[in-house]
Amino acid sequence: MTSKNNDAPWIRVLPLGGLGEIGKNMMVLETVDDIVVIDAGVLFPEWNMPGIDVVIPDMDYLEENADRVRALLITHGHEDHIGAVPHFLKRVNVPVYAPAMAEALLHEKLRQARMRDEAELKVIHPGEQHEIGELEVEWFAVCHSVPDSTGIAITTPAGVVIHTGDFKLDNAPVIGPPSDLGVLADICQDGALLLMADSTYAEEEGYSPSDREVVENLPDLIGAAENRVIVSSFASQIARIQIVADACIKHGRKLCVLGRSMINNTKIGRDLGHLDIPGDLIISAGEANSLPGDKVLILTTGSQGEPQSGLVRMSRNDHRDIKIQDDDTIIMSASTIPGNEVPVNDSINELVRLGARVITNHERRTHVPGHARKEELRMLLNATRPKYFVPVHGEYRMLKSHADLAVTTGVAPENAFILTDGDILELDRNSAEVVDRIEAGHIFVHGLGMWDESGNVVIERRSLQHNGVVTVAFSRDTVDGSLVGRPKIVSAGFVHVEDSDGLLRETEDALTPVLDQHLKKPIEWGDLEDVVRTTVGSFLGRRTKRRPLIITSAIDV
Amino acid sequence: MTSKNNDAPWIRVLPLGGLGEIGKNMMVLETVDDIVVIDAGVLFPEWNMPGIDVVIPDMDYLEENADRVRALLITHGHEDHIGAVPHFLKRVNVPVYAPAMAEALLHEKLRQARMRDEAELKVIHPGEQHEIGELEVEWFAVCHSVPDSTGIAITTPAGVVIHTGDFKLDNAPVIGPPSDLGVLADICQDGALLLMADSTYAEEEGYSPSDREVVENLPDLIGAAENRVIVSSFASQIARIQIVADACIKHGRKLCVLGRSMINNTKIGRDLGHLDIPGDLIISAGEANSLPGDKVLILTTGSQGEPQSGLVRMSRNDHRDIKIQDDDTIIMSASTIPGNEVPVNDSINELVRLGARVITNHERRTHVPGHARKEELRMLLNATRPKYFVPVHGEYRMLKSHADLAVTTGVAPENAFILTDGDILELDRNSAEVVDRIEAGHIFVHGLGMWDESGNVVIERRSLQHNGVVTVAFSRDTVDGSLVGRPKIVSAGFVHVEDSDGLLRETEDALTPVLDQHLKKPIEWGDLEDVVRTTVGSFLGRRTKRRPLIITSAIDV
Repeated sequence: MTSKNNDAPWIRVLPLGGLGEIGKNMMVLETVDDIVVIDAGVLFPEWNMPGIDVVIPDMDYLEENADRVRALLITHGHEDHIGAVPHFLKRVNVPVYAPAMAEALLHEKLRQARMRDEAELKVIHPGEQHEIGELEVEWFAVCHSVPDSTGIAITTPAGVVIHTGDFKLDNAPVIGPPSDLGVLADICQDGALLLMADSTYAEEEGYSPSDREVVENLPDLIGAAENRVIVSSFASQIARIQIVADACIKHGRKLCVLGRSMINNTKIGRDLGHLDIPGDLIISAGEANSLPGDKVLILTTGSQGEPQSGLVRMSRNDHRDIKIQDDDTIIMSASTIPGNEVPVNDSINELVRLGARVITNHERRTHVPGHARKEELRMLLNATRPKYFVPVHGEYRMLKSHADLAVTTGVAPENAFILTDGDILELDRNSAEVVDRIEAGHIFVHGLGMWDESGNVVIERRSLQHNGVVTVAFSRDTVDGSLVGRPKIVSAGFVHVEDSDGLLRETEDALTPVLDQHLKKPIEWGDLEDVVRTTVGSFLGRRTKRRPLIITSAIDV
Repeated sequence: MTSKNNDAPWIRVLPLGGLGEIGKNMMVLETVDDIVVIDAGVLFPEWNMPGIDVVIPDMDYLEENADRVRALLITHGHEDHIGAVPHFLKRVNVPVYAPAMAEALLHEKLRQARMRDEAELKVIHPGEQHEIGELEVEWFAVCHSVPDSTGIAITTPAGVVIHTGDFKLDNAPVIGPPSDLGVLADICQDGALLLMADSTYAEEEGYSPSDREVVENLPDLIGAAENRVIVSSFASQIARIQIVADACIKHGRKLCVLGRSMINNTKIGRDLGHLDIPGDLIISAGEANSLPGDKVLILTTGSQGEPQSGLVRMSRNDHRDIKIQDDDTIIMSASTIPGNEVPVNDSINELVRLGARVITNHERRTHVPGHARKEELRMLLNATRPKYFVPVHGEYRMLKSHADLAVTTGVAPENAFILTDGDILELDRNSAEVVDRIEAGHIFVHGLGMWDESGNVVIERRSLQHNGVVTVAFSRDTVDGSLVGRPKIVSAGFVHVEDSDGLLRETEDALTPVLDQHLKKPIEWGDLEDVVRTTVGSFLGRRTKRRPLIITSAIDV
């Protein structure tokens, strides 16, 4: 530890695992004796990480300091905040404190990972105070796009630290209370030491729209439809389920909920009392198919063009239960997450081709985002009056915009820190600085495999996807190492089958004398691979202007 | 030919090569004796076509009917309308008629392809009439985002056919005349037989904004900047270059134009008289670096996040001449083409991290699109009063929206045809129907390679990118075919190097007895490949939950 040399009690914060969105998935807060971790989420892979399921933070630092880690504190139930909890608990098994909806989702997630018994899950409620080590932790209610979202206020020896989680101010949320600025102002009556706040919409002027706009628009659209209505939304958007159910009652439609996550979340929402839906409103897909179109509403996933989702299966005409019909009205009750534009657009085209009318958020407001804009962020800054400010949960441009905003509300420019994952910011009542930086990498998860970034897997895949692969195999004599027979060259994803045969035989012809020559004397495997790669690579490069990945194998016979 | 059985003269239209955007890149128009082709463009590869440079239409139909093909008619100089001209001329060498800007760009393109001497390029001007076979062809001026854009009116024995090219109505374009609805109405005084019109913005209500908004905003933003200004735009957006040059003069900045295409297009724009820029306004990158920041404006490409573009190189801090400085103002004078959101966003984050302020079209209107919206499309329909309507240049949802719009202006519902590439629509004064459908595939171009879709290259690349590759090599006896030595298994993009060795050796152990067994008697190569694929695939599938591409090679020794 390279702590600053003074006597005031200090704390440190350390963001981990954000893939460019800093402090999004995990935030470490530590004192001399205690560490708590806020959230343990997954990231979804970016376009240049082909074939990766999810990305999780590298947690080596936590394992190394496991004796001081006291708890995992969850703000809300979205995957980018709870998705890595099973991985976290395998590394550091400490109690997990979570608000009700997040706890219910975690319960299911840990059950699927066969870890339910060993995990200690604790449900928290806003307003309760929990002593964790020398920290006093209080969750406060915030509005966001999943029920029971919270921010966290932590009273430390150095002062009060606020982490907002994901939030917006909505004066009339459909489920739960408005964000509780009052209790925050109360907790921060002497000003917060540190505020860490959601930056996702920090570039946007004004206030975010209220869910009430959706409450007004969705039922109108549903009422105007003449045949079936299919609504696509995020499964965690419980409030949207309520709005849709209410509209069904109003317009005499039955509600058919499709898809495992949508069904599961509807159940959790009802169990927790967030959803008020009469049991006889809900029908099965079979019943939906037997009713007239204007008596049916189908709620499903697929707003992001996910290949296995309900709506996308319908667009490909291969959904088990539901076939798109002429004049079906499809309402995309979501906005498109950046990066998903092309698959979303493809699925809309196919749905229109099948005869449906598709209404998106662009045409009519069918969705509002769950993140605060500039004026809401100013209100938060005014309510908490932090000495230090760390924008979290956003790309660099958003963090920068948020930091600039904080300065306009009175934070000293030198006290607003845009951190990078792995930066250890140490602060006390008098000063703050980045005192250290650890390797804060990412772990790529695919199937049962996990690798850190030092592995070649992702790099090789990028090369494979752009240029294909050429494999070179040859046999050599076990005794003297000399070439036996001819080398054999095969390719995939490189050239058209019809064109390739002659080209690859010519490449074998070119390689044979070179190999023969090099195998006459002892040679290291790495050097031999280089010879093959250079010979084959430049021969094919001249002929095709492309550079496939080249794999060499030798068989000793 | 399966022509309808009546005596009225007929024509046929056939869209080719659109990858989902129908009639975007090439439209064939034929009579009994003559064929003309409108545009020959490339498509840029979609996300599921890794490693492909461009996609061009399959032109077999034209080659088969080469004796009737009279000319290639170009509407404007964008790549998606002229990019495949060299490929086209290799198949069918006929005269190419093009407006001045497109001709100049084609001249350069054919020079680079070493085809300039054999190609017959003819410059056309709006208002001229050209007899081509039994067709009378007249180009008419339209506004679009490259100068000298045109639509084409073709008087055929069956009636007048209008193809709008890409267009919008702009009452005050920066370069060239407004779209000429007057001459169109004149040509169509008896109503057009067929209208084929740009559908790109057919889902958008109202009128498209005028370039005048950019004329007002860009100079303000440039005037307000305190250090250097870097403007990023499309190289073909000649009017944007004029706006930027005028703003430089107004605000006392010199103009540095970077990048081959931007420099080349600026030269063409000046040569053709579209650009009015004093020679001493333009400076080199060296001069730009020696002047104070507030005296410099740099114009470059990179608005779409293209890896080799000027702005993206600057964002990576590896541009040869220009380093981003604190307080540089970067103006993205373009909108993001769907599918490019992630790279554009990544480059903006990096530019902000380097200290620049980035202003996008979202924050302030720095760009207007070049395509007509609903009210403009209605005006076009009213001016041409077509009997038949074929929406072109759009995804299915846009074509559908455009066809519905045409019906509201008086086109009979049965006379609005949403075609698929390859549909042959035959029409005369009395009736119209799709009489045939040809295979209208796409050719994928990568380096010097070209394949049609039947090849496995793209499919294999998709598999490689998601799961990597495992190669299996073994030796067999030339005499009796029996296994010699052990098989050798190597992988790439599949598992982490550290994990793979043991796993692959175990797979070899599992495969050896199976191979040994099957090689004891004669076996077809395809069957043997299946045995290897099944054995290795299920062994690895069980251990990793992943399914890599498996390549097998045998060496006879």
